[in-house]
Amino acid sequence: MSGACELTRKIHNAIPLSDAMQFSIDHLDLDDIRVSAPLSPNINIHGTGFAGSLYSIAVLTGWALCTHIIAESGIDAELVVARAEIAYRAPVVSDIECSCSSSEEQRDEFLQAFRERGKARLVLDIAVGDLPQASLHATFVAIARA
Amino acid sequence: MSGACELTRKIHNAIPLSDAMQFSIDHLDLDDIRVSAPLSPNINIHGTGFAGSLYSIAVLTGWALCTHIIAESGIDAELVVARAEIAYRAPVVSDIECSCSSSEEQRDEFLQAFRERGKARLVLDIAVGDLPQASLHATFVAIARA
Repeated sequence: MSGACELTRKIHNAIPLSDAMQFSIDHLDLDDIRVSAPLSPNINIHGTGFAGSLYSIAVLTGWALCTHIIAESGIDAELVVARAEIAYRAPVVSDIECSCSSSEEQRDEFLQAFRERGKARLVLDIAVGDLPQASLHATFVAIARA
Repeated sequence: MSGACELTRKIHNAIPLSDAMQFSIDHLDLDDIRVSAPLSPNINIHGTGFAGSLYSIAVLTGWALCTHIIAESGIDAELVVARAEIAYRAPVVSDIECSCSSSEEQRDEFLQAFRERGKARLVLDIAVGDLPQASLHATFVAIARA
């Protein structure tokens, strides 16, 4: 089973809403993640992508990339989202697609801070759609397990 | 049927995710709204409230209050959320409760701006939990229907 498929299954098992949204990781490596979800379970009153679904799929995209970075580094950390800002620019009228990247420099800084202090932040920008139709700027915090 | 019950039903019918989250409006008037959702369909990998559910329930809380203000005023507007910021301070370990208030002055300014320009913003602060465990600051935009 690929890392993308395994992490999708882990998220579905732990987070019922990810299953309701039909969240799926299509590509996952340390540099990039791409996820998708069909529009129909995620529509709003206007028949376009529901603001809450767009946010939830985007925050899970960032969380999944950060989880993958942590798993590959071998550190033992709990990961939470501390704060996030989302801007909606245009309605999403087809399947929901999110993408997010991290650089090697960003990962090195994050892992070095974690090893020094047992806690570190990773700030990620997640694009929703190709325009992008929405943008999420989210701060994730990794904390050493007790 | 009360306004709270009717609007809950309308939201469930139009937004499948609100049904998956078991979103319910418990109290609704022009000044205040209170909503709730059970924790179990909204848990995350830590067994506490999923960040995406907390955001989605909070943004629906603000959207529902704004929808009620529009309905009571008699204006004909489409309502969307333009941007939002959320800060998570503590995990939610019991049923999710959100609340939001609006003042008469704020509503008067919003409705006057809408009547003058056919478009107006309403900025609302939504509390998640009693501490509050999370806070959402959201900008809603009402646009006259074509």
